[in-house]
Amino acid sequence: MILQLKKTISQADREAVRAKLLLLGFKATEVHTQAGIYWVVVGKKSVDLRQLGHLPGIADIHQVSDDYQLVSRKWKVNRTIVDLGDGITVGEGTLSIMAGPCSIESESQAQQTIDHLKAQGVRIMRGGVFKPRSSPYAFRGLGIEGLRMWHALAKKAGIKIVSEVMQVSQIADMHDYVDIFQVGARNSQNFNLLDELGKVDKAVMIKRGISGTVEELLYSAEYVFAAGNEKIIVCERGIRTYERASRNTMDINAIPLLKEKTHLPVVADPSHGIGIREFVEPIALAAIMAGADGLIFETHQKPEEAYSDGQQTLNFAESEALVQKARKTYALRESF
Amino acid sequence: MILQLKKTISQADREAVRAKLLLLGFKATEVHTQAGIYWVVVGKKSVDLRQLGHLPGIADIHQVSDDYQLVSRKWKVNRTIVDLGDGITVGEGTLSIMAGPCSIESESQAQQTIDHLKAQGVRIMRGGVFKPRSSPYAFRGLGIEGLRMWHALAKKAGIKIVSEVMQVSQIADMHDYVDIFQVGARNSQNFNLLDELGKVDKAVMIKRGISGTVEELLYSAEYVFAAGNEKIIVCERGIRTYERASRNTMDINAIPLLKEKTHLPVVADPSHGIGIREFVEPIALAAIMAGADGLIFETHQKPEEAYSDGQQTLNFAESEALVQKARKTYALRESF
Amino acid sequence: MILQLKKTISQADREAVRAKLLLLGFKATEVHTQAGIYWVVVGKKSVDLRQLGHLPGIADIHQVSDDYQLVSRKWKVNRTIVDLGDGITVGEGTLSIMAGPCSIESESQAQQTIDHLKAQGVRIMRGGVFKPRSSPYAFRGLGIEGLRMWHALAKKAGIKIVSEVMQVSQIADMHDYVDIFQVGARNSQNFNLLDELGKVDKAVMIKRGISGTVEELLYSAEYVFAAGNEKIIVCERGIRTYERASRNTMDINAIPLLKEKTHLPVVADPSHGIGIREFVEPIALAAIMAGADGLIFETHQKPEEAYSDGQQTLNFAESEALVQKARKTYALRESF
Amino acid sequence: MILQLKKTISQADREAVRAKLLLLGFKATEVHTQAGIYWVVVGKKSVDLRQLGHLPGIADIHQVSDDYQLVSRKWKVNRTIVDLGDGITVGEGTLSIMAGPCSIESESQAQQTIDHLKAQGVRIMRGGVFKPRSSPYAFRGLGIEGLRMWHALAKKAGIKIVSEVMQVSQIADMHDYVDIFQVGARNSQNFNLLDELGKVDKAVMIKRGISGTVEELLYSAEYVFAAGNEKIIVCERGIRTYERASRNTMDINAIPLLKEKTHLPVVADPSHGIGIREFVEPIALAAIMAGADGLIFETHQKPEEAYSDGQQTLNFAESEALVQKARKTYALRESF
Repeated sequence: MILQLKKTISQADREAVRAKLLLLGFKATEVHTQAGIYWVVVGKKSVDLRQLGHLPGIADIHQVSDDYQLVSRKWKVNRTIVDLGDGITVGEGTLSIMAGPCSIESESQAQQTIDHLKAQGVRIMRGGVFKPRSSPYAFRGLGIEGLRMWHALAKKAGIKIVSEVMQVSQIADMHDYVDIFQVGARNSQNFNLLDELGKVDKAVMIKRGISGTVEELLYSAEYVFAAGNEKIIVCERGIRTYERASRNTMDINAIPLLKEKTHLPVVADPSHGIGIREFVEPIALAAIMAGADGLIFETHQKPEEAYSDGQQTLNFAESEALVQKARKTYALRESF
Repeated sequence: MILQLKKTISQADREAVRAKLLLLGFKATEVHTQAGIYWVVVGKKSVDLRQLGHLPGIADIHQVSDDYQLVSRKWKVNRTIVDLGDGITVGEGTLSIMAGPCSIESESQAQQTIDHLKAQGVRIMRGGVFKPRSSPYAFRGLGIEGLRMWHALAKKAGIKIVSEVMQVSQIADMHDYVDIFQVGARNSQNFNLLDELGKVDKAVMIKRGISGTVEELLYSAEYVFAAGNEKIIVCERGIRTYERASRNTMDINAIPLLKEKTHLPVVADPSHGIGIREFVEPIALAAIMAGADGLIFETHQKPEEAYSDGQQTLNFAESEALVQKARKTYALRESF
Repeated sequence: MILQLKKTISQADREAVRAKLLLLGFKATEVHTQAGIYWVVVGKKSVDLRQLGHLPGIADIHQVSDDYQLVSRKWKVNRTIVDLGDGITVGEGTLSIMAGPCSIESESQAQQTIDHLKAQGVRIMRGGVFKPRSSPYAFRGLGIEGLRMWHALAKKAGIKIVSEVMQVSQIADMHDYVDIFQVGARNSQNFNLLDELGKVDKAVMIKRGISGTVEELLYSAEYVFAAGNEKIIVCERGIRTYERASRNTMDINAIPLLKEKTHLPVVADPSHGIGIREFVEPIALAAIMAGADGLIFETHQKPEEAYSDGQQTLNFAESEALVQKARKTYALRESF
Repeated sequence: MILQLKKTISQADREAVRAKLLLLGFKATEVHTQAGIYWVVVGKKSVDLRQLGHLPGIADIHQVSDDYQLVSRKWKVNRTIVDLGDGITVGEGTLSIMAGPCSIESESQAQQTIDHLKAQGVRIMRGGVFKPRSSPYAFRGLGIEGLRMWHALAKKAGIKIVSEVMQVSQIADMHDYVDIFQVGARNSQNFNLLDELGKVDKAVMIKRGISGTVEELLYSAEYVFAAGNEKIIVCERGIRTYERASRNTMDINAIPLLKEKTHLPVVADPSHGIGIREFVEPIALAAIMAGADGLIFETHQKPEEAYSDGQQTLNFAESEALVQKARKTYALRESF
């Protein structure tokens, strides 16, 4: 159950609500976010809402039966639109395209990508500066220096940045230089990291775990929301199955399922979803048709020379074609 | 390696080719289909094609390195179009829609469905008369009598029939009353059944196994082709994964992968692919955008009253909406 | 619900039971097996057993809530012991070892294997004469002639035979030459085959499907039982998962789970379960410790020269070592 | 390739080696551990070892073709034995048993468990004080205070402690109160955490990821080793598959595979591996027979009242029985 408190609630009224809940045998977690104050109320019995609704200071009460609550669409009819500033949003009403290299490699590479995106009207750039690598001997990214350089270039061009944060200690360092903190598939259940990202006033995009369920992804989002941050995007990026013909199995079903279960925007990552360059486009278009609010994909001026994962990276001509087809596909879907 | 023989090859020339192959250490399987005579040549060494090409009676030689050969797109540039007669085809250039109930239940139900399909311009109807059921105590279908009844109604309406065959002994019984023999997911590697369907001059649609790989699906198609039948359709219908939010995981990746690897038409089954009625439409449209040549889905005049699997069955209004959106989606894709 | 009828029940009493069930809204399937007459009663309501128990001709009534019934341990306290004759049984009280080659290749190979098994006191030999192959161009076994040859040799040595049956039409041909019909993993849900094997008075060993669930395996066994054959063995042989370090993932959990859920004997196949020769032994011993009633594994006089699957085939020295360790492991388990 | 340097190598000789490697086109990572100095040399070409072997200061050179190197058994013939002090070791020659509750709940519970373990001669106790929970509203453990209390009790009893560390900032806090840092399944690829644990002189036990591969588990261990800590244990705890009859699928195959690939001790967690209390014992015994060096399982004085996961927790009588059978099983295995 979610109680929405009035912003003007008095201390006395707040105590009265808490006492009443205690009496009824419930435990409440108070959540302050950018948008309001919520109490998530958990208990074993179901409650007669009339016993609570007449108390002063309560704006609204929502019965939510899912185990995740704040991210559930059962209580929030309007879909969340994540505002990145400068008129750039992620969520209903727009197709958000996020593109860029696997890793930021150099100033020249960053600038070339920015120029390419700008020419397409793409306003969000992806890129890694801290790279999770299965081998400890592999390139792990340019780090915070690289991020600062990239951010300066992107800002000048009016382009927003999404980049992966791997641990709590990086949050403060990265904070002023990213617009969306990305939580990678391997950190999808790093609960401490999610907790800390809940305390930040920046958007957070959570990738589904490599073998995470749809429900676990929503729980991870619940962590961020419960810690105080409503600006959350969830991302389907393919799951691990027995099939070896593609790198991952893009779980296209997850897209309408997530759109049904949560009010948060849902983005699709076709690059990791199939992992084979020549098939990124059809999977991207399929994801839009299935209901995705946006795409995040890899592009590089010379995919053959990219650090790692070049096998799934589009060149700029392919990226341009995809952006145009994606917009037409989105327009058709919206016309239905 | 595939040798295409001239239709006019003499017996002596044929023996000369065979002797030459033997000398080179190869084993050849002769395949007669509706369209031609092929020799699939398997051996451990690679061969210098010039040693064979000058022999009389050989029309063409194709080097195919995949383990499946006749169904591979490496030797056959033109995509196979399966002709069902009366101007109805499955394959490139058309979006084939196959719709109908899980099970044929009665004459009235069959007729209502036919009327519905006809009004939408849908010309292929699906329906089961032999149903594979995990429990031996469940309804197993109306059997051959039901098929005859259904076929008579469909024929009058100019509608083709696709229906599942479960065992070799049913092939002869069903032969005159189906246009496409469907091999179900549980029979996807029933090699005897595939062998026998290779001897029939009717189309065969092979569903991917419940946990079959893309490669295994192509091998199953190779069985049918190698036994003499080129009229093959392959169908992606969702695979078994750890995810429990949907009944199966629609492997959208498989669609462009299959289109790349084989010249056969590729059909998508969104009903089984997600297994939840309200999400059949987005998955169907996604599959088209990913490259599918057709759809097969379940519809029923009263899904709540359908035998089994009603949870994934569209009512006629939903079916009508899907057909219209599917055609628009296909038109957009073809415009790219 | 399962009704056991008295063998002496009169026709009138039988009709009275049927009428009563009908009146209560139930559907009954009558099952005659080697051991008795059962009525499997399926209905939507639960029934007050006292309404039935007083009717003449009923020996016993069992409430079974699982969807599979006859194979459930909920009604049959004593474990089934499958008797192969000549004092050879499979089930509680014995560790059954079934060993032999993937394929029967020649008289000399069959005789060498028989000699090897006899020296170890192993009394059941495995071997394929009809081989399911993903490629239509691969060796498919010696067929019925090979089976006859093998059977003659085995019979002389007092050794029983387990061999795979792939289709209904082979049942009659194989009947006199096998002691256990094996249903392979790919045919695990070939319901027609299971139905027909239910009409035969020979033991049937059903392998779990490549991605079959424990529950589906029990349903497949239910098919055989419901068609009249109680002599059933189920076999865990590894499942398909994302892990690529081994050919399959031996589902060791399935062994105690099956032993809990069914009264049928449970055999383990470590050869397919891991698919790597050097690790067949530890997996076999683990399976015994987990509760398996027997082992089926591959052995060959020269594994390097065996048709197919030689990678998981033990040579005779390895086979001998395994048999000895398996017996000691079983003895330790039984001492607990 | 791994170069082992002599501990007495001079600065000049070290520079000479580095220069030579650079000249040959290699990149070297220097690793200082408790036991020695290694250079892990990575490059695209293979090298002629004779070009390096004559340089002064090099103790040994090992060609390792796996992508993980330091944890590979290809260069280190002797198995690693992790010494916890006071004569307590994990690895070859001992069956290590680690038992205890899911969560440390109270002083009384900790003391009861210690008394139980002591009576069985079990010298390592498991317990969580920081609990990863999918829901943010669930109990997250007693934290560092709970750990200090527990440690004081355990130390008095001569019992070592293994407990999960969830983030880098907890390492320093926990350091003096644990004997083995456990990395949980959800953190199995938290590379920053692994890096930092490589700088600590305490044992680290890494659980396999929920859908991690055997290879990924070894890579995670490589992170710890490459950062300077050789005291590593790897743990198989079940993987996520489609099967729903058990909570996870215990990958029994992984045990002999890991023993073949790495010199590190391999421990099995049957509690999570099957997730059903009554089957923990057979899975534990199976894991020993498959080659495990130890067990970690859950036990509680009253499993029904335990925080979370009580479904897989043994009571003390079951725990006692398991310990005794485990030792007999281990003794049998060692006798082979």
